[in-house]
Amino acid sequence: MTSRVRISLKDIFYPQSIAVIGASSDEQKERNSWTGVLLNFGYQGKLYPVNPKATKILGLQTYPSVKDIPRPIDYAILNIPAPLVPGVLQDCATKGVKVCHIFTSGFAETGMAQGVKLQEEVQSIVNRTGICVIGPNCLGIHCPDSRITFANLPRKGGPAAFISQTGAGAGRAIIYGCNKGIYFGKVISYGNAVDLDSSDLLEILAEDPKTKYIGLYIEGTKNGRRFFEATKKCLRMGKVMVILKSGLTEAARETVASHTGALGGSEQAWQAFFAQTGAIRVHTLEEIVHQLVAFQYIAQPKGRRVGIIGRGGGPGVIATEICEMEGLKVPAYNEKTREQLRNIIAEKAGSMVRNPVEIGVGWAGTQAGYKDAFKIVADSNEVDLILTHLNPEAFALYGGTPEWLNDSIDTLLQIYGTLPIPVVLVLPNGETRETRALVEHARRRCSRAGLAVFTTYESATRAISKLITYYESSHKFQDFEQ
Amino acid sequence: MTSRVRISLKDIFYPQSIAVIGASSDEQKERNSWTGVLLNFGYQGKLYPVNPKATKILGLQTYPSVKDIPRPIDYAILNIPAPLVPGVLQDCATKGVKVCHIFTSGFAETGMAQGVKLQEEVQSIVNRTGICVIGPNCLGIHCPDSRITFANLPRKGGPAAFISQTGAGAGRAIIYGCNKGIYFGKVISYGNAVDLDSSDLLEILAEDPKTKYIGLYIEGTKNGRRFFEATKKCLRMGKVMVILKSGLTEAARETVASHTGALGGSEQAWQAFFAQTGAIRVHTLEEIVHQLVAFQYIAQPKGRRVGIIGRGGGPGVIATEICEMEGLKVPAYNEKTREQLRNIIAEKAGSMVRNPVEIGVGWAGTQAGYKDAFKIVADSNEVDLILTHLNPEAFALYGGTPEWLNDSIDTLLQIYGTLPIPVVLVLPNGETRETRALVEHARRRCSRAGLAVFTTYESATRAISKLITYYESSHKFQDFEQ
Repeated sequence: MTSRVRISLKDIFYPQSIAVIGASSDEQKERNSWTGVLLNFGYQGKLYPVNPKATKILGLQTYPSVKDIPRPIDYAILNIPAPLVPGVLQDCATKGVKVCHIFTSGFAETGMAQGVKLQEEVQSIVNRTGICVIGPNCLGIHCPDSRITFANLPRKGGPAAFISQTGAGAGRAIIYGCNKGIYFGKVISYGNAVDLDSSDLLEILAEDPKTKYIGLYIEGTKNGRRFFEATKKCLRMGKVMVILKSGLTEAARETVASHTGALGGSEQAWQAFFAQTGAIRVHTLEEIVHQLVAFQYIAQPKGRRVGIIGRGGGPGVIATEICEMEGLKVPAYNEKTREQLRNIIAEKAGSMVRNPVEIGVGWAGTQAGYKDAFKIVADSNEVDLILTHLNPEAFALYGGTPEWLNDSIDTLLQIYGTLPIPVVLVLPNGETRETRALVEHARRRCSRAGLAVFTTYESATRAISKLITYYESSHKFQDFEQ
Repeated sequence: MTSRVRISLKDIFYPQSIAVIGASSDEQKERNSWTGVLLNFGYQGKLYPVNPKATKILGLQTYPSVKDIPRPIDYAILNIPAPLVPGVLQDCATKGVKVCHIFTSGFAETGMAQGVKLQEEVQSIVNRTGICVIGPNCLGIHCPDSRITFANLPRKGGPAAFISQTGAGAGRAIIYGCNKGIYFGKVISYGNAVDLDSSDLLEILAEDPKTKYIGLYIEGTKNGRRFFEATKKCLRMGKVMVILKSGLTEAARETVASHTGALGGSEQAWQAFFAQTGAIRVHTLEEIVHQLVAFQYIAQPKGRRVGIIGRGGGPGVIATEICEMEGLKVPAYNEKTREQLRNIIAEKAGSMVRNPVEIGVGWAGTQAGYKDAFKIVADSNEVDLILTHLNPEAFALYGGTPEWLNDSIDTLLQIYGTLPIPVVLVLPNGETRETRALVEHARRRCSRAGLAVFTTYESATRAISKLITYYESSHKFQDFEQ
């Protein structure tokens, strides 16, 4: 039996009723656990704590067993000791629960006989009854749309989804994303994948009109062919896919076996997978978010030529080198463009009229010069994208005021939408309390206005380069059925 | 004439009297410029503003020209329009000023005839008079020891020096370093290097007993052979050298020509340089700081085997892979070690007994388990260094309290000094106001206690790998005179 025919997007992400099996009768504890987290996140469906020793938890009618709940249950969360899981899962199947999320750990991921045996029991119940299981050993669902979550997370959602074999990584990606302008609309941590695995989840998300970008953290997959087909289906449906395939090195492969009991697969096989599908490969959780920023905030560049516009000499040179290391070009401007730049910048401290253009921080009229530089570079027809960088410490170091950063962002937001090519901002984290707050504020303004912001040159250039590679290759993947 | 015979460490970094030529008569302005910055930083020597239109600036007796100052001047800062620089430099030479820092830009870096000609005039005055020039187009000196600086920077110094062709980068490195536990004791931004260049500065710092680590940002050097010899001298004197050589790509080479008028040199030549000297190559300003953290805070590891101890599953797997990508090993533990780990960790949510060891965040008694895991792994004789990671969002996500992070740091600080192998912490930036403050506090505690902290796995593993390579290779460089 495959889960792909029996389970829909609605079953997983939009259940109308949830049973929390193993809710604590200690309300203080449960306030920070499943019942409290769901209430706090604003879940609007029916919520039923299950605990044989309590009649009410956090104001909700509580039942001794899932079988005692007098209404249908769409979704159950199992937060009970591992040895009790098979029995309760059987109860859920009997009750007609569609989806069971087994939060509990202590299964095959332990590598110990007892855990492996318990997982086999879970597997056999799934096979026999057809109940759908998420997990075990995972955090389950986060879906701001239906107000379901697994932790105290922000409520804002968006067009990005994240499928994650690691729970800790799922939470981290959501929080990290919020500060970079990526608001995940659907996240699922699926752990040991005794039933639902990445292929099922991709097939389900392929049908979701609200999901445009899919990030994946996978350590292994049960069926490589199915994963390949599910990936192609998502791509065919117009979703962008960004994948962190972990567990490839020898050591990591053993770790993965421990972590979720999955098989890592060979590096060669995965290289072929990426080459054939056009899914984008990344190497850290943070890079998933950076790549999603590139897709969500940067319009398709026509080529790899980058114009760098900065506010101080050395960083522009470093950025140039990093661009070229990441496969981008930073071409010299022709004499006409240089002449135009010369006219606006003149020979002032910290200014340069080449590519990168540098506009000295201390120079009077910098905002006007900054703005003009964008127009000249964008209209030159010599570059396909502008990378600009601001040093949040600059004003503090060189006698300026905090308004300098705000004013620079004003300038950027005024100009970037009027240009024929995309603009990307590199704005490092502030290093003092004052600059940190200013940077946060500046980033939020940019994200809200749709301007792509990165923290480092490396993350920006890597994401831009992969974005361009994606567009360069995408015609190759238009007809998948080769 | 070479500057190496005429100028000493004392002349550059410890002048007894400074003239600020071009101090503004607008005191509000000068408060944020050279005179104000030096006063604010606590400079204890004699300070003389020079301005023909003022008699007192910020309470200091002001002179119309450097020649009018009735006392000897060790060091002059020139903050005047470029066309006036040659005349004033000649005045300084006549006055007997030893070192002139030309802050002013508008010389060869502009690539324009007038600037090139002005720089030639400066050069010819240097040749004729023997006056020592820093710059033009640079920020000059930062030396907390003698209370000289170029911006509003922290006063704390340390055993690291930074020689930087870029001024913006020098300021950024100092501020970035402060938050990572690297306090630069001597920094020099030397710009166009009409006279003093990186080779001179290395020869000077080689003799400084207070400098143990030298970071360099160079875009080019006037004399490759001299730079090679100066590097070898520093290494022979026991200094560690970390070099960001920028301007190697075709585009960056042109940029460099613009930025400081220097010649970039070929990639092959620089590869040979790094192979033959044992200086460490990095690619960003931030990486200079990360590498200095590794040298200053991590005792020499005996090998490349890393034991990972974390607080949640997925990140450990990712860290394992990044370790191996950076040339480190994450070996599986033998059965004896696993058995010991099993005894302390048991089969609880989010825990794993392999390498990486993972100790679930939500598990009761985690601090004791965390501590025991360090002892077991360190005593196993199976790894040479422990990499541990904490997720600052973990407690907020999974129902814990902020004390969780403080307690984890307590545990780390209690245990790490008692272990036979070095420990390195990866502690990402906080993503909320609360966690940000907690992380800052935690990092400061670690740095003060001598524990190495990094923000990402990539930066940690890269720095550790290069540290080990340095120690592996250092015997090769013991006898340089091949």
